[in-house]
Amino acid sequence: MARGGQRPVGEAFAALPVAVDAMGGDRAPGEIVAGARQVAENTDINVALVGRPGEMGDVGDLPWFPASEVIGMDDDPGNAVRRMKDSSLVRAAEAVRDGKAMGMVSAGNTGAAMASALLRMGRLPGVIRPAIATPIPFPGGPWPTVLLDSGANAECSAAMLVQFAQMGAAFAERRYGIEKPRVALLSIGEEKSKGSPLEKEAHGLLAEGMGGSGFDFVGNVEGRDFFEGKTDVIVTDGFTGNVALKTLEGSMRFLIGALTEILGRPDVKETADALYTHLLPLAAALDPENTGGAMLLGVNGVCVISHGSSSSVAIVNAITVAHDLAVGGLVDEVAASVTPID
Amino acid sequence: MARGGQRPVGEAFAALPVAVDAMGGDRAPGEIVAGARQVAENTDINVALVGRPGEMGDVGDLPWFPASEVIGMDDDPGNAVRRMKDSSLVRAAEAVRDGKAMGMVSAGNTGAAMASALLRMGRLPGVIRPAIATPIPFPGGPWPTVLLDSGANAECSAAMLVQFAQMGAAFAERRYGIEKPRVALLSIGEEKSKGSPLEKEAHGLLAEGMGGSGFDFVGNVEGRDFFEGKTDVIVTDGFTGNVALKTLEGSMRFLIGALTEILGRPDVKETADALYTHLLPLAAALDPENTGGAMLLGVNGVCVISHGSSSSVAIVNAITVAHDLAVGGLVDEVAASVTPID
Repeated sequence: MARGGQRPVGEAFAALPVAVDAMGGDRAPGEIVAGARQVAENTDINVALVGRPGEMGDVGDLPWFPASEVIGMDDDPGNAVRRMKDSSLVRAAEAVRDGKAMGMVSAGNTGAAMASALLRMGRLPGVIRPAIATPIPFPGGPWPTVLLDSGANAECSAAMLVQFAQMGAAFAERRYGIEKPRVALLSIGEEKSKGSPLEKEAHGLLAEGMGGSGFDFVGNVEGRDFFEGKTDVIVTDGFTGNVALKTLEGSMRFLIGALTEILGRPDVKETADALYTHLLPLAAALDPENTGGAMLLGVNGVCVISHGSSSSVAIVNAITVAHDLAVGGLVDEVAASVTPID
Repeated sequence: MARGGQRPVGEAFAALPVAVDAMGGDRAPGEIVAGARQVAENTDINVALVGRPGEMGDVGDLPWFPASEVIGMDDDPGNAVRRMKDSSLVRAAEAVRDGKAMGMVSAGNTGAAMASALLRMGRLPGVIRPAIATPIPFPGGPWPTVLLDSGANAECSAAMLVQFAQMGAAFAERRYGIEKPRVALLSIGEEKSKGSPLEKEAHGLLAEGMGGSGFDFVGNVEGRDFFEGKTDVIVTDGFTGNVALKTLEGSMRFLIGALTEILGRPDVKETADALYTHLLPLAAALDPENTGGAMLLGVNGVCVISHGSSSSVAIVNAITVAHDLAVGGLVDEVAASVTPID
């Protein structure tokens, strides 16, 4: 992790705080600060807030980096990051760049978090474009399935998809201890002839072993395979990945909502109570609050992007993941995994 | 519907049978023939089977068109249709072309059904590429949401997306009686600046009214909006549409499976019985068997593509829909809706 030049190493690095954007997210600053305090009070992880002095509420003993501006959830990411140089997102990314924080966490504007990390931390050598890796909960399996790119790049080349495979595998290995992750390409049929020219080309490169030996390429999977346990990592362009992720979330939310409504009806309410002991673990396993957030891969630092609706629980998980991956050397692992692709 | 030239009109057209591919689908010919017989025996709709004589089981009084070949579910569509000229799919499409059937239904190889319809019935004038329109069940609303293209064209132009909007609106109007359907573009954010160049260009054309006055363009929707009732028709390229549709189906199947498993556990089994009276209507509303199948739009004839796993129930619905839309003038409506786009 000495890649930045100015960053401390060894124990000094491990003592750095995780920088938490106190101002980003639908429930900021309340839930964000509450999550940060919980981590600081109950673990050995150091945490520092980033935000507007006086607007973060009761921060307890937490240290903070001042930032006078706030990028809104709907602000245009590129413009906002260029214009608001004293925003909490930009300052959080700078803290990582300057060796003052081991990583950053934000539940704010995803595009702006990405742009801040990219512009301030910089891209890792050889990486064409960073990508967002999102763990998809898989209650039937030992670990979530990692989907990338889930929204950073609406347009991709086949070479980018090969790098997403490399970076996703490095992430899955560090995050879940999978020795040689299985990586699949998202397409519209299992045969290599299926898909648009982009997927066909990427399939060819991956099947030829252009991605290296860090993962097993298991071919194409389809949208229906997210819960089939066929693969550890699913690679796609950021447009398709974002649509798939949101379709999945929307379907789950719809069905869980319909079920909750049914369980509340007068004639089943009583019997329904017995069911909750079984339903709650399933709901918890599916809840994105518990997966620790998405990770921006390919930048020179750890950047965890938590769901916009994050509660303190999600923030606790995101901070813990950011800490573990920063100390565990994720950035070096990702840097080592990526090869230039012609 | 006289567009084919040789087709009967008026009462003669209404007396034509719906041609049902008896050999296509995971449960063919048994469930297919059973569904066809149910329609013929219980309604005024005429039905004719298409398949291998002697291999269709007990066909009762149903007439049939002979076809000696069967295209497999995994056969390459283009090759299969070119090579197997006496296949049930090709013969079904020819029956429509030749004015011997009012429309066709198949639960077989989707790509081959599409190719058969396109090559035998032909494209409607001005249509760049036909598209598959799939009704997504929406239990909370008055009618399903129509998604197209759900898999016919892995690569699309913005002009194609505009035509999908026109054809999808014509379908929604005929199928569900929606006077001026709301049409949305599937993207990765609600702002018109979101998405790949394809979506941005299509958004521009639709917002400028290039799609005509047959529908209301309501802007972008995201994957999470399938069950939000924001729109009647969702337009996207066939790659994204196929991924979204299968992600949605996979999510539903996963969650319903997990729930069924929980309801079967010994300690809740008894109380769970009371719940089924509430859960079954929801499950039925979500079941693709009940939506009547997908429709190939833009070809010169009615072609309903039913799910590969179709039971007799799905076939009954598919035949009924094919009949109602053929008699209701869907093809003329679609033809009239499409304008050439530069």
